[in-house]
Amino acid sequence: MSSQLPQVLKALDTDQQGALDRLFDFLSIPSVSTDPAYKAHCQKAAEWSARQLKDIGFHEAKVVPTINHPMVVAHDRKTVPKGMPHVLFYGHYDVQPPDPLDLWTTPPFEPRIATEKKNGKVIVARGAEDNKGQLMTFLEAARAWKKVAGELPVAVTVLLEGEEESGSPSLPGFLKKHGKEVTCDYALVCDTGQWEKDVPAITTMLRGILATELTITGPTRDLHSGLYGGPAMNPIRALMNVCGAMHDKNGKIAIPGFYDGIVKPSSKLVKQWAELGVTAENFLGPVGLSEPAGEKGYSIYEQMAARPTLEFNGVTGGYQGAGSKTVIPSKASVKITCRLVSGQKPKHVFESIMAFVAERLPPDCEAQFSEFRGSEAMAFEPTMPFIAGAAKALEDEWKKKPVMMAMGGSIPIVTAFKEELGMDSLLVGFGLDDDRIHSPNEKYNLTSFQKGARSWARILAELAKAG
Amino acid sequence: MSSQLPQVLKALDTDQQGALDRLFDFLSIPSVSTDPAYKAHCQKAAEWSARQLKDIGFHEAKVVPTINHPMVVAHDRKTVPKGMPHVLFYGHYDVQPPDPLDLWTTPPFEPRIATEKKNGKVIVARGAEDNKGQLMTFLEAARAWKKVAGELPVAVTVLLEGEEESGSPSLPGFLKKHGKEVTCDYALVCDTGQWEKDVPAITTMLRGILATELTITGPTRDLHSGLYGGPAMNPIRALMNVCGAMHDKNGKIAIPGFYDGIVKPSSKLVKQWAELGVTAENFLGPVGLSEPAGEKGYSIYEQMAARPTLEFNGVTGGYQGAGSKTVIPSKASVKITCRLVSGQKPKHVFESIMAFVAERLPPDCEAQFSEFRGSEAMAFEPTMPFIAGAAKALEDEWKKKPVMMAMGGSIPIVTAFKEELGMDSLLVGFGLDDDRIHSPNEKYNLTSFQKGARSWARILAELAKAG
Repeated sequence: MSSQLPQVLKALDTDQQGALDRLFDFLSIPSVSTDPAYKAHCQKAAEWSARQLKDIGFHEAKVVPTINHPMVVAHDRKTVPKGMPHVLFYGHYDVQPPDPLDLWTTPPFEPRIATEKKNGKVIVARGAEDNKGQLMTFLEAARAWKKVAGELPVAVTVLLEGEEESGSPSLPGFLKKHGKEVTCDYALVCDTGQWEKDVPAITTMLRGILATELTITGPTRDLHSGLYGGPAMNPIRALMNVCGAMHDKNGKIAIPGFYDGIVKPSSKLVKQWAELGVTAENFLGPVGLSEPAGEKGYSIYEQMAARPTLEFNGVTGGYQGAGSKTVIPSKASVKITCRLVSGQKPKHVFESIMAFVAERLPPDCEAQFSEFRGSEAMAFEPTMPFIAGAAKALEDEWKKKPVMMAMGGSIPIVTAFKEELGMDSLLVGFGLDDDRIHSPNEKYNLTSFQKGARSWARILAELAKAG
Repeated sequence: MSSQLPQVLKALDTDQQGALDRLFDFLSIPSVSTDPAYKAHCQKAAEWSARQLKDIGFHEAKVVPTINHPMVVAHDRKTVPKGMPHVLFYGHYDVQPPDPLDLWTTPPFEPRIATEKKNGKVIVARGAEDNKGQLMTFLEAARAWKKVAGELPVAVTVLLEGEEESGSPSLPGFLKKHGKEVTCDYALVCDTGQWEKDVPAITTMLRGILATELTITGPTRDLHSGLYGGPAMNPIRALMNVCGAMHDKNGKIAIPGFYDGIVKPSSKLVKQWAELGVTAENFLGPVGLSEPAGEKGYSIYEQMAARPTLEFNGVTGGYQGAGSKTVIPSKASVKITCRLVSGQKPKHVFESIMAFVAERLPPDCEAQFSEFRGSEAMAFEPTMPFIAGAAKALEDEWKKKPVMMAMGGSIPIVTAFKEELGMDSLLVGFGLDDDRIHSPNEKYNLTSFQKGARSWARILAELAKAG
């Protein structure tokens, strides 16, 4: 069956416009999962995905309700032939909020093709890369295999989630109830990036994450800063003071216990990373920065991949309108996410942060944390057969060996697959650093989309051989 | 003419419902000056005020255009009889923004009478006290005098501003062009409070103010906190770090130069303040606080009246919606106001803050300050004849000697009157600490409104005697 690969690749090349039309259709659904206002759109995106899978030829494709946004579950085969690998493909149909809207050149949910000097033709829309464009590379490969060969080279189950960008609140309950149905030999996840525009990558290390929101309350109501200013504690001042002490001058996180348990990467790995040639100039330069802001003593690559972070993702308090208002607000809050590395436990890090805040909180202030969500960091051995097989397929397509990459981001689902279902994951994706994911004018290179689909067509063939 | 005072007071008592109807009419105009969306409403409030003054019997009352919201200027007499004092009454028809709207029990611009256990009947609306209710006490007194005596006991010019809550951007230009028309012997300003519900006050000291907004910019665009977190500087982190160091552990402002030039109040005054009985319990208790947050070593009254402050009135940056978003934002900003005391120069304080920020700013961050606006602190001697006269009138009405008060707030117009037109000011008002000005459910006691009008009727008679 693998011998039909050349025809499959040809089918992909022939139907490029059809593939693009399907992606644009998908991108026009504003499936923002974190904001309840978009709930109906998330439902619509799930139903659209299920119809796609049916149309490709999956024998079963269903929308499974959860406590929040639904899951899409599909099976290509009724029964898995003995000895044939059975893989789970995972993607997510939800996207990040598009704000700040005024920085988008065109509306975020009206996909278009633009031409950029550096990248050539690009697809611009919220979700163009993360994750609609990426997951469609796999679906297009599956479509071509079904069309040419009538079957996929391996047994495939598909799971598409609608809450990846909002902490996957329904996932634990779903895995408890439907875990058996989606447990395969291993998982394929297309939510990562390439090394460079022309160099593929397999991600074998991921940072974990811890997310929470801290709200500091002071007076019981907003106060006039003239009448009360001086004697009255201002909760923004308390927030600034407490959070302003969380990083020291050397970029180190000054929270006792934060770094507990960290397993350092091997010196061999650190040496390999050093050879990748990541510099302040080429990594930070494109976003207008010049000096690494992480812990001194670590390279940029280590700061990004192998060291934990504590980031303030949003801060709000007091008067937000135009002009000034002489108010001492009743409360102020900050959204915090930490990236975690091997050995860190989300709960312990969360407790360390809570203790740090409690110790520094001035009198008359109260600190409240939203329930934390977290996942541990992950690592897979490049020598595993399915990873080695995928590496060969990627090299065949891109004519360059894929880089085995450590990634600064977090994919909690990969942790859940490992911890809940015992599955390892193959992380292959075609994103690029300049894709502006989570930012205005998100894009996906047209070549990423097209060669991505070709790559998955090849990987499926290799996985059949890898067994 | 002063002999007609009893009939004037009686006329006020007889027309209480008419006065309330007029105030409610005024309060229903949402004349928020800081937000351009309310521009037409500010114009409407100015026109309403001019019509009131005409209706009261002022021979001239006009709406004077400015670069932003108009001024209202009115003259009671065509010519001022020789030897008769000529006073300027100043008030402002604009109000603070009503947000947060969801904390209002009823809509902010639908005035109503409510009954509170502590205060009895109160008028609830944005502007009920600050400044519509307060300025109407003077206009109602003027109306009663005109009705009973046909004339006011002293020559009165009225100036109503529409930008007091938004930094009075038009004022300098207006005073340059029309300063002569509104220059009188001294000014009457009704924008302050009583000492207690039953104890009147004359404010003889005011803090100055400095207002600006600081924006810190880091990367040129919002970044993904997984891909860039660690190496990339987060501007919220920089803002927290820099602003979190502006106050030390003892409540002192840690900005070099901030306290330069301060003239300390006399020990006699400090002793008088100590006798006023202001405690953490009675001052901070009602707003849910218990410990003075200002500089250690100063009493609560001193912290509020005689020591400068640096307050964060609003902070914003990054993701503000529901849930979490793993973003490193491109910028973050904070609105700052400082209350200044005698001897501090706004420009010098502004420059000190800028230098403090510049020195602490991490690499790759840029700090931008909005143009500052400021006014110096003010002080008037209680022995001045018009102040002594007003004190007698207040004692006659309230049966208690007025407290000569130092106020934590700032009234930039009082500085402008002194510096631009050479006028001192009499600061009498009937606000109470629990009026919730600048906050949801702002109120003005019905007794403040009614006895306030009676107080002005008496003050006008005393000013005629004081000469």
